[in-house]
Amino acid sequence: MRTSLCDTLGVEYPVCGFTPSEHVAAAISRAGGLGVLGCVRFNDAAELDAVLGWMDENTGGKPYGVDIVMPSKIPEEGSSMDLTKLIPDSHRSFVDKTLVELGVPPLPDETGEREGVLGWLHSVARSHVEVALKHPIRLIANALGSPPVDVIEQAHGRGVPVAALAGKAEHAVRHVDNGVDFVVAQGYEAGGHTGEIASMVLVPEIVDAVGERAPVLAAGGIGSGRQAAAALALGASGVWMGSFWLATEEYLQTMTGSVAMQRALVEASSSDTVRTRIYTGKPARLLKTRWTEAWAAPDAPEPLPMPLQNLLVSHAHNRIHAAADPSVVSMPVGQIVGRMDRVRPVADVLGDLVREYGETVARLNGA
Amino acid sequence: MRTSLCDTLGVEYPVCGFTPSEHVAAAISRAGGLGVLGCVRFNDAAELDAVLGWMDENTGGKPYGVDIVMPSKIPEEGSSMDLTKLIPDSHRSFVDKTLVELGVPPLPDETGEREGVLGWLHSVARSHVEVALKHPIRLIANALGSPPVDVIEQAHGRGVPVAALAGKAEHAVRHVDNGVDFVVAQGYEAGGHTGEIASMVLVPEIVDAVGERAPVLAAGGIGSGRQAAAALALGASGVWMGSFWLATEEYLQTMTGSVAMQRALVEASSSDTVRTRIYTGKPARLLKTRWTEAWAAPDAPEPLPMPLQNLLVSHAHNRIHAAADPSVVSMPVGQIVGRMDRVRPVADVLGDLVREYGETVARLNGA
Repeated sequence: MRTSLCDTLGVEYPVCGFTPSEHVAAAISRAGGLGVLGCVRFNDAAELDAVLGWMDENTGGKPYGVDIVMPSKIPEEGSSMDLTKLIPDSHRSFVDKTLVELGVPPLPDETGEREGVLGWLHSVARSHVEVALKHPIRLIANALGSPPVDVIEQAHGRGVPVAALAGKAEHAVRHVDNGVDFVVAQGYEAGGHTGEIASMVLVPEIVDAVGERAPVLAAGGIGSGRQAAAALALGASGVWMGSFWLATEEYLQTMTGSVAMQRALVEASSSDTVRTRIYTGKPARLLKTRWTEAWAAPDAPEPLPMPLQNLLVSHAHNRIHAAADPSVVSMPVGQIVGRMDRVRPVADVLGDLVREYGETVARLNGA
Repeated sequence: MRTSLCDTLGVEYPVCGFTPSEHVAAAISRAGGLGVLGCVRFNDAAELDAVLGWMDENTGGKPYGVDIVMPSKIPEEGSSMDLTKLIPDSHRSFVDKTLVELGVPPLPDETGEREGVLGWLHSVARSHVEVALKHPIRLIANALGSPPVDVIEQAHGRGVPVAALAGKAEHAVRHVDNGVDFVVAQGYEAGGHTGEIASMVLVPEIVDAVGERAPVLAAGGIGSGRQAAAALALGASGVWMGSFWLATEEYLQTMTGSVAMQRALVEASSSDTVRTRIYTGKPARLLKTRWTEAWAAPDAPEPLPMPLQNLLVSHAHNRIHAAADPSVVSMPVGQIVGRMDRVRPVADVLGDLVREYGETVARLNGA
């Protein structure tokens, strides 16, 4: 399972693993893939700096990358306080009422402050880039497409390539025109922010549109060697996996208290996801639970635009997390959740994928 | 590109091509695939009999199959006249008003009669099976899952295997339990009736659920050799293609007056489809045009259940077809429409697919 991407990224397998957990990211890198740490949860750049310092010590000298969330157009923004004023009271009431109905208790140390995740803000994402470039990162990926051109140039100045997610071929072309080095073709079936075109159609379309200028990684629906082989058959130079690492042992080391969430994922089928704007304001695929169902009810308000929707629900997310009820999880995950049937070490996931990839190519040779 | 399916079906390539056109079906069979003629458009069994007689003369002795539309549970039904009474006047008014707004004129020989397509009715589908079994067919496929068990037994009694479409693994298991011989795993990206799980996730899931008992064909998103190789990598024993044949020269031989429709397909991108209940009452993916947009408007009524919705719109379909306006097409097609960039002979489509399949497997061997 070697492609040109292995040499470019300095990895053994062309498998990029996106995760908010540094323990998972480091384990992916140690196992021969490229661990890509999601930065959006770090409101404080100093905290990210410390975690990347930990990564430097724990990847065994193997390469790793980071993932930021930065729109190419600089949006209006303000402090968290300014923004929260834009959230209608009726939306707040709906969230409060829904949490009561779902049996989600307040946090024990409820303070009334609701800062939320600020990593969606442009200024915070820029601070992530500044900090990350002080570490020996091998990739900066942007979950919202092309970062601003000056950020791309900043990364290139340090010799760090930039990847961007795309859900349409026209977006991929724009990314590469902007100087992006790799395109992650993210299909409909993927977890988190996702478009409407499924991987089977999207991947070859993006490869045909930009493949001669930039390698393409396939994202969405990949959790096995057969799926990785399918992605490479479609023309991808590698795969990008996010959801699958949520059901690993290492995930719990960072995200303590996620046992209930993992149980919900392990029990879910591929039908148990929903694409909705309730997580961030943009369409994202989540695990279908009583929380997502409440937002789909006739009395539910329309989700707010990014970044307001996440500010609205981030405190609810904390309460939901603390409640540890598998039926009220709020978690981005792809349709591959149906294949996540137990919690395993990262190295086992990657090892099984590579082994099955080899078996699949051998089988195709007989066909 | 050989799998066990080739021997079972007596074909050179494990490619089943579903089409309502006998000219396309015969050309697929002659080119080494299995042409599968859709029967739903035949209200009169004698007409189907004549067309299958033509197939017998024009497939060069190569095998072919038929596709029926028959729910496993026998639904309430009556004559077309009984059923049309169940259609609310408000729905009729909406259709009439919309056609005027879209500039679709009445038919020149407008009679006021609106028989519609009756092939959705159980009794009519049974007459299709009776007729088809008098011909040397090699497969009966059912677009709505398992046919009734007695129909499966009737086919087996004549030595004809039965295939059934499935959009979920649990449906596939039920089909095989009922005696179905092949499962067509139809992903979200497919045209026509389709579920929510994309091919990348669905195909291996169905293979793991029933693959030891029944070969699985992958449907949805397949129009090239890379996609066929991906399908086989995912564990499928073959592919099932429907949309792609709509942009063939042979299609026009049966479906005269489809030039405008073909132009709309050739110009469409993979984003230009929509999954909606407006065609039959069950979710089906259609080309996105001014017709589908009208049904998505806030003032549009909810589509009726099957078979009423098709009775409601079938006359409109005739008017739309006659109007020959590429912006007001009503046509089931999958996301692969983005790859349908010109009208070609069937043999070229299949030849290119087989050639690219070989190149893809060779490329994977180097990876």
